[in-house]
Amino acid sequence: MNKQLRLGLIGGGRIGKVHATSISTRVPSAKLVALADPFMNKDLEAWAHGMGIADTYSDPMELISRKDIDAVLICAPTKTHSTLIREAAKAGKHIFCEKPVDTDLKRIAETMDIVRKSGVKFQIGFNRRFDHNHAAVRKQVTDGVIGDVQIVKVTSRDPAPPSPQYVAGSGGIFLDMMIHDFDMVRFLSGAEVEEVYAVGSVLIDKGIGEAGDVDTAVVTLKLSNGAIAVIDNSRQAVYGYDQRTEVFGSKGCALVGNDTPSLVQVSTKEGVMGEKPLYFFLDRYLDSYAQEIIDFVDSVANDKPVKCGIDDAIRPVEIALAATKSLKEHRPVKISEVR
Amino acid sequence: MNKQLRLGLIGGGRIGKVHATSISTRVPSAKLVALADPFMNKDLEAWAHGMGIADTYSDPMELISRKDIDAVLICAPTKTHSTLIREAAKAGKHIFCEKPVDTDLKRIAETMDIVRKSGVKFQIGFNRRFDHNHAAVRKQVTDGVIGDVQIVKVTSRDPAPPSPQYVAGSGGIFLDMMIHDFDMVRFLSGAEVEEVYAVGSVLIDKGIGEAGDVDTAVVTLKLSNGAIAVIDNSRQAVYGYDQRTEVFGSKGCALVGNDTPSLVQVSTKEGVMGEKPLYFFLDRYLDSYAQEIIDFVDSVANDKPVKCGIDDAIRPVEIALAATKSLKEHRPVKISEVR
Amino acid sequence: MNKQLRLGLIGGGRIGKVHATSISTRVPSAKLVALADPFMNKDLEAWAHGMGIADTYSDPMELISRKDIDAVLICAPTKTHSTLIREAAKAGKHIFCEKPVDTDLKRIAETMDIVRKSGVKFQIGFNRRFDHNHAAVRKQVTDGVIGDVQIVKVTSRDPAPPSPQYVAGSGGIFLDMMIHDFDMVRFLSGAEVEEVYAVGSVLIDKGIGEAGDVDTAVVTLKLSNGAIAVIDNSRQAVYGYDQRTEVFGSKGCALVGNDTPSLVQVSTKEGVMGEKPLYFFLDRYLDSYAQEIIDFVDSVANDKPVKCGIDDAIRPVEIALAATKSLKEHRPVKISEVR
Amino acid sequence: MNKQLRLGLIGGGRIGKVHATSISTRVPSAKLVALADPFMNKDLEAWAHGMGIADTYSDPMELISRKDIDAVLICAPTKTHSTLIREAAKAGKHIFCEKPVDTDLKRIAETMDIVRKSGVKFQIGFNRRFDHNHAAVRKQVTDGVIGDVQIVKVTSRDPAPPSPQYVAGSGGIFLDMMIHDFDMVRFLSGAEVEEVYAVGSVLIDKGIGEAGDVDTAVVTLKLSNGAIAVIDNSRQAVYGYDQRTEVFGSKGCALVGNDTPSLVQVSTKEGVMGEKPLYFFLDRYLDSYAQEIIDFVDSVANDKPVKCGIDDAIRPVEIALAATKSLKEHRPVKISEVR
Repeated sequence: MNKQLRLGLIGGGRIGKVHATSISTRVPSAKLVALADPFMNKDLEAWAHGMGIADTYSDPMELISRKDIDAVLICAPTKTHSTLIREAAKAGKHIFCEKPVDTDLKRIAETMDIVRKSGVKFQIGFNRRFDHNHAAVRKQVTDGVIGDVQIVKVTSRDPAPPSPQYVAGSGGIFLDMMIHDFDMVRFLSGAEVEEVYAVGSVLIDKGIGEAGDVDTAVVTLKLSNGAIAVIDNSRQAVYGYDQRTEVFGSKGCALVGNDTPSLVQVSTKEGVMGEKPLYFFLDRYLDSYAQEIIDFVDSVANDKPVKCGIDDAIRPVEIALAATKSLKEHRPVKISEVR
Repeated sequence: MNKQLRLGLIGGGRIGKVHATSISTRVPSAKLVALADPFMNKDLEAWAHGMGIADTYSDPMELISRKDIDAVLICAPTKTHSTLIREAAKAGKHIFCEKPVDTDLKRIAETMDIVRKSGVKFQIGFNRRFDHNHAAVRKQVTDGVIGDVQIVKVTSRDPAPPSPQYVAGSGGIFLDMMIHDFDMVRFLSGAEVEEVYAVGSVLIDKGIGEAGDVDTAVVTLKLSNGAIAVIDNSRQAVYGYDQRTEVFGSKGCALVGNDTPSLVQVSTKEGVMGEKPLYFFLDRYLDSYAQEIIDFVDSVANDKPVKCGIDDAIRPVEIALAATKSLKEHRPVKISEVR
Repeated sequence: MNKQLRLGLIGGGRIGKVHATSISTRVPSAKLVALADPFMNKDLEAWAHGMGIADTYSDPMELISRKDIDAVLICAPTKTHSTLIREAAKAGKHIFCEKPVDTDLKRIAETMDIVRKSGVKFQIGFNRRFDHNHAAVRKQVTDGVIGDVQIVKVTSRDPAPPSPQYVAGSGGIFLDMMIHDFDMVRFLSGAEVEEVYAVGSVLIDKGIGEAGDVDTAVVTLKLSNGAIAVIDNSRQAVYGYDQRTEVFGSKGCALVGNDTPSLVQVSTKEGVMGEKPLYFFLDRYLDSYAQEIIDFVDSVANDKPVKCGIDDAIRPVEIALAATKSLKEHRPVKISEVR
Repeated sequence: MNKQLRLGLIGGGRIGKVHATSISTRVPSAKLVALADPFMNKDLEAWAHGMGIADTYSDPMELISRKDIDAVLICAPTKTHSTLIREAAKAGKHIFCEKPVDTDLKRIAETMDIVRKSGVKFQIGFNRRFDHNHAAVRKQVTDGVIGDVQIVKVTSRDPAPPSPQYVAGSGGIFLDMMIHDFDMVRFLSGAEVEEVYAVGSVLIDKGIGEAGDVDTAVVTLKLSNGAIAVIDNSRQAVYGYDQRTEVFGSKGCALVGNDTPSLVQVSTKEGVMGEKPLYFFLDRYLDSYAQEIIDFVDSVANDKPVKCGIDDAIRPVEIALAATKSLKEHRPVKISEVR
């Protein structure tokens, strides 16, 4: 093994902590040496030291300016992403950034342009690509088992709805929630989306409607190769986090259901019962969060292409904005209309 | 048991023969006493006598005019349905008619009006409602297990595409194939469709495109209660007849997959393998064809409402025409536009 | 099609009626022309005429002596089987007989000897061989997918226990219930049983124990090729009729679970629920009862070997008697000990 | 959190390394401070330092005699267990020991007696109790869902056979392999085994037979409450590591199948295919190895009873010896005969 990659973490919130734990327990080829968070406090410092992170900062620029750091993980709020990416790129740091880069396509384009010119590695955090189940479906496509992709289906339902307050500032269901599924469609099909049609309803929480959003949505996507994708989202599946994907093609069909805490099957007078899907996204996707960091470190350490890069950062935002426009204008919207 | 219901069959083709066999083997409370078919010949006569059908005619009107016949089964080509239904209604015969009644909404309306006024029972042959699997999903809805219906999903894929010649005269994929799925959406949700958006592609056979149709289609439907339905159709699933339905609601989700010839599961070095779905629609839905006749006979004999009646004959045609218009005009189409 | 085979039914009880219905609805190449039952009465006569059976008798010999009958179905009580089989064989009638032929091995041997010499076809009613699921497991063996058979497992649990009164006259769980599973082991493995060890307990109904029997039993069988089989029986599975088989070999494993009324899967706050196994043996095995008659008629009409013949009538009784002896003497018992 | 528990590891082989990795990545409340291994060398030292283990020894007694170590993990060869346990107990160290304690019941009894008197915690490494799947089956029993346990079934098949050389020194299939399944029967049922009957064959590798062992075995166990258990073992399941358990009782049945790398399901012309079971026991049971250490540390740190203790160390060896005797003497053997 070569020397360990030295990483800096920007943002010590929930997802930042998930990545820190992954690195300390499952990525022996990397080491987290610094944490920056504007809300640095005693508890966060104690946590950092417990994780073996030596230095803490309130100002991310202090972390970015350190010469001995190879790469940064940006786990700060979305509105700070563009600035942090630009600064990190200028400082020559490789970048892993949580999704989305930004919600403004022009700013994303400029930021990505800076990254491209800087030559640093850039990976965007669409973790589901690294999930064993969705990746197994993708593998059937790349192995040629499915043949030409004709239909892609994604079901993605959250266990409980966010508050209307959260929704009001979220950018809407397509940017906040379905953006992962837009990435899934691109990932599973290997094709680009050309046109979007969105249908939405408020069926779960009127407050979400009053906040200007929908809580139930189905989006149809026309892909570049003529294939058709369809995504259904709900903010509330009472039985847990429902995450299923399916690819249908000229030679067959691959689909995958939900992971469960165990495979126990119980037969009683009432029926034959299995366990509910893993309820919380961190339970369901914990391994995928680790795997994306393992792959990022591998890309940087061994100069390989990242598995989810600049284009993958831009396209899902475009699709989400087109879906938002489609819902508002009640018509199919071409992606080219929002570029 | 009361006296047997006396039935006349109009049309001795494939589906007519299926119903005749069902009646002779599984509907002891009814008896097929006559068959009419314009293409009556020795073989068909021999088949009829073998089935215990006493009388055969070339002219359906001879059958309809018989006093001793209680009900007719219309299994003739679609273009003859309206006329036959009207004559049968005037003659006071109860009517079971294969779907669709007609492809012209005005003519359907007039025909259904005559039926309504005549007072005879009228059942339309959407057999999938009588399938044990789809009916079990519906039962979860009517039992209140699913709560308020929010999303309905129907996958319906044929094992092999029809010839372009057939397609050219079929009325298109929405009237020819997806019409069953439109019925499923109404059946499973208990709601009416208000608006339709259709996406289609030619991915399987260019000849189908040259015949003016698509072979792959996804249709999104907005329902009266705000719920959203989505149907995907393919003319060719190489692994067999793929027929799955799903209803998602405020209290849960019910879904059903495909019947297979057996439940055997084989583990070898290559993997864990199960059987493919039943390949042919008559294998998959044979019991549902028998059940719809059992229920029709029961409705007539015991003066009960039919389970799939006049409205069910009209609505799916409206939806199919709206979908056709949507695909052509590349926009969402309200059902009210085609009425 | 050749002329119909003319059949006589001896015994108009539950299983006799099942066969009569199968023949009238699913075996067009055969016709039931007579029924004999010592308890012939008005109801049974009415039922027979309703089924299209022309003649009824109280004395089975009257039926057997009819020249125009090709084959008889013996569905009378076990104690009458030997006599009826001998008379039918002497009269040159082909014979389908419900299992078991007899519970006395010497009498079975004599009866089978008479049948053998008479040259008539003889099929014993181990219907499970004709079940689509178990037959699919067997097919994996005969197709060579499983390789050399090494382990066979049979689970067979009834939905509800019989009364102690019934048990007292039943010959015990091995002759009454597990005999079907002994047949399954021979059918699935294609090998003969050499030695048996039985363990049994009274865990469900003390009355069954007082009647001298057990209600829960596990039997291990050493097969001629060194393979090992194990059967577990319970008189009461509260979730329904539990019938599963598994064959494990040098190249893989084939197993099969239970048929259910539908494949619906329901996810709610409580869990993910499917339907219970078909509860009643006639629901679960109805098709297999029809298939065994179809195959019997085919064997007779086209002079083919029967699929379940003389040896299959003898061996399971031997195994059941060896298991009974094993349980009593608390030691492994060779089949040769009971011959 | 209290201060970390300080652990010493005795034995740096495969399973020792698995535990060391678990502790460093998943047991923050414990720290491995020393490793002892008679075959200590540069590579092993380098590995230890890489894992953050400060001190290494060739003599386990040096490790055991350290005052600052709270507990030891004994992962050395079986023949050293008794001595190491006695020394550790005398030194007041809590003990986690890989299974089995010993193959000699008298020595086990003496060793366990010393442990009992010393008052230290003692946990034996039957890791499968800590597997999410088997634990979920057990939970159905303890939750009362299954009612009174009546039948227990365990399938346990290895992916590939060991060499005859290994077999010759292994103590035989019952002590080497099925011992885990004997533990499972006790764990799942909550009952003790009273009598054993073993059947075995050499069907996979004649060399195993020449080494005096069998490679295929089925064992029937009579439990203290009258319930019956059955275990089937094979040294070679070509499709992977096959590990299934089932508990049947008065109120229902709980069963569990195999974990797979993903849940992907692929339908093609050939059939419907899923993934094979996880092939290697460390893949299948990795989490269970971590969980048993987590629970051991928790028991020591918080003075709770261990989940798999002294009795659990003794009983499975008794059963294995009784099974060995049963196979040899070809008769059922009571556990009391081998005590």
